[in-house]
Amino acid sequence: MRKTFVADLPARIGERVTLGGWVHRLRTLSSTTFVILRDASGTAQCVAATDALAGTHLKLDDAVEVDGRVRADERSRFGGFEVDIDAVRVVGPAAQDLPFHPSADLAAVGQDVLLAHRPLSLRNDRVGAAFRVQATILELFRDFLRRQRFTEIVSSKIVSGGTEGGANLFKIDYFDRAAYLAQSPQFFKEHGVCGLERVFETAHVYRAEPHATVRHLTEYYSLDLEMGFIDGPEDVIALERTLLTHVFAELASKHADLLKPFQGKPLPSLDQAPTWEFSECLARLAKAHRRTDLVDDLDPDAERQLCALAEKEHGVPAVFVLGFPLKSRPFYTHPRGTEGAAQSFDLLFRGLEITTGGQRLHTRSALETSLRGRGVDPATFSDHLRMFDLGMPPHGGLAIGLERLTAQVLGLTNIREVTLYPRDRQHVSP
Amino acid sequence: MRKTFVADLPARIGERVTLGGWVHRLRTLSSTTFVILRDASGTAQCVAATDALAGTHLKLDDAVEVDGRVRADERSRFGGFEVDIDAVRVVGPAAQDLPFHPSADLAAVGQDVLLAHRPLSLRNDRVGAAFRVQATILELFRDFLRRQRFTEIVSSKIVSGGTEGGANLFKIDYFDRAAYLAQSPQFFKEHGVCGLERVFETAHVYRAEPHATVRHLTEYYSLDLEMGFIDGPEDVIALERTLLTHVFAELASKHADLLKPFQGKPLPSLDQAPTWEFSECLARLAKAHRRTDLVDDLDPDAERQLCALAEKEHGVPAVFVLGFPLKSRPFYTHPRGTEGAAQSFDLLFRGLEITTGGQRLHTRSALETSLRGRGVDPATFSDHLRMFDLGMPPHGGLAIGLERLTAQVLGLTNIREVTLYPRDRQHVSP
Repeated sequence: MRKTFVADLPARIGERVTLGGWVHRLRTLSSTTFVILRDASGTAQCVAATDALAGTHLKLDDAVEVDGRVRADERSRFGGFEVDIDAVRVVGPAAQDLPFHPSADLAAVGQDVLLAHRPLSLRNDRVGAAFRVQATILELFRDFLRRQRFTEIVSSKIVSGGTEGGANLFKIDYFDRAAYLAQSPQFFKEHGVCGLERVFETAHVYRAEPHATVRHLTEYYSLDLEMGFIDGPEDVIALERTLLTHVFAELASKHADLLKPFQGKPLPSLDQAPTWEFSECLARLAKAHRRTDLVDDLDPDAERQLCALAEKEHGVPAVFVLGFPLKSRPFYTHPRGTEGAAQSFDLLFRGLEITTGGQRLHTRSALETSLRGRGVDPATFSDHLRMFDLGMPPHGGLAIGLERLTAQVLGLTNIREVTLYPRDRQHVSP
Repeated sequence: MRKTFVADLPARIGERVTLGGWVHRLRTLSSTTFVILRDASGTAQCVAATDALAGTHLKLDDAVEVDGRVRADERSRFGGFEVDIDAVRVVGPAAQDLPFHPSADLAAVGQDVLLAHRPLSLRNDRVGAAFRVQATILELFRDFLRRQRFTEIVSSKIVSGGTEGGANLFKIDYFDRAAYLAQSPQFFKEHGVCGLERVFETAHVYRAEPHATVRHLTEYYSLDLEMGFIDGPEDVIALERTLLTHVFAELASKHADLLKPFQGKPLPSLDQAPTWEFSECLARLAKAHRRTDLVDDLDPDAERQLCALAEKEHGVPAVFVLGFPLKSRPFYTHPRGTEGAAQSFDLLFRGLEITTGGQRLHTRSALETSLRGRGVDPATFSDHLRMFDLGMPPHGGLAIGLERLTAQVLGLTNIREVTLYPRDRQHVSP
């Protein structure tokens, strides 16, 4: 492969190289033409006599190869060098009539147009950085957990039923029977704990929910972890606090260039984020906002209001809400005390729920009692309940929605902005 | 969390600790009882007076917490220390009548029994190591590519059609329409290349193929990459050669403990693995094995025979087979010369195809011609073909089957051995 990456050019001053990338900007003066070339590693300014390029008919967003010589130029905004062009070859021409160019501000371009031309939008500084931040979050999540003795697992997304009783499942024609798309790896990661003690998985989950909001998709990417031998949900909260504080600190220190297009507030440490009981949250919302409408769960307004209260009191726009009503949580949730609360928490961050987690029931008898209490025959879950006869320790875990976390890190309002091809009731293509 | 990991005990000699893990072995003498405790980090020998444990009724595979004191013991086979037990609590009892115990050799236990008790099998040295090796391969694959300027992408698994024309797709009931499970991220990673130049994805792919073999599942995990500005498939082959040589070297040097239960041959470097043309392979098979039955593709016997020939000639049981017949490859495959060959390759490793890759067509007109030549209306793929108007460079990539790669690394014959819950025509549960 002949191509040299832009980022490697400072070490090649004076040498002849071949570059490969896209025409990001193009400035044609009477005597000189400037081509800003973008590749996976950065952008470089390439220069030629306008006459010499006359036959090439270069235009924005063409994929090109450039043969040239690297020349030191301290005035250059592009890394202290320029490339004097010997030859340019258009190896992948762009169409004449593109609906937008990635060197422009894309704020006014509609979501459907962006999706229909996804590669173009990925070449935009801001959009490209958003997806690179997402990839970096994924990497940091996995690396942190590996160092905490978690093992990555790969669990099946084709299942015979739901983890929460069968609602909101997409049905698959599976040869001569029905199967479903997994709405969570919950059962599998609990099995993983029973075998490996600490496991994580990063994968899609599926919810057949028709509502179209800025925070819901039918297919989203879940950062799941589960750990054994916990003393309570506080252990899971403590782990997430450290995990996200680490992720944010690494993003801010090592990937500041990727965050720059977003001009958001600095990413906080979660060390000071409070843990508030659900009942305490209702009391705070009643006092601060005269809200008396909430009973079993929070709503988007409440999530924003609680984060604002946490920021006012603790300087961090984040709060762990612990002790949700047991009846609003899945059957495998461990009770907290005897008053109907659950060892279950959400993390609200910058006004949005980005995590649900908690301690799970770990004895077969408790699970069977819980199922019967919800009118479900435990036999429905026999393949799963069998695993609780194999030495299942107390355990808990959490799931972070990757798109939501990325959106909140970057200050974006719609998770579609950090989903390559969002899936909702209207969209299954491209 | 009170728990100390076994691996951290050498630094805690003389201290009181609480351990959490499973009773892996249990030896009860008249005066002394030895408990081998297993956790995520290793195994430790814990010791108590038999009388003191009388009320606990410990048994194999109970999940327990042990309070005790760490004592240096140079004779110990378990890291130079033992733990004197103060108290044991059974926090997750195992059933009395388990079908097997993970401290035993599980070679004779049937696959269905292992799956129905997956957590128990994960506590077995060999089975646990197999899945840890798989997780390590995943980590090494991603890390290597990141350093080569690849960006991780997350693409949708819910699609409106197949990448190869519609055969072997699982249909999903998607609200009021049909959608399908993606059989490959091929189109999405090509879009990714057009935007980010180099992308990878690690995710499930789905094939509605009813055949039951040791090398096929309906859901498997694919390590996909795609890169722009290549000169030909040889660039993709060169990348995979370096990638797998790196993965194998890291496994052998840093994870030798995980490979030990498998007693296979040392993992080779692929530097010397030959690249043979498909036509050359047929000639070799005709000469060495009098095979004249192969025309458009290889079969499992041919894969084994070619690896044996490569090992004999080059000392490496691996061969890149390049130039498969174009008609046996998908419509987006780039031709190799004008005699009906494709810029398409397989990597055969230790007798099994573990990779398919190649250079793709990168102009819209060539793709449309190819589709028409196969009797497909290009309009069927209009959402995809539009992306080729956006400055698409020459590109190529590959997909490695994670389960197959892991099986070949470990010398296992059935990919079910490295799949937590295999999915085939008969199995969608647990």
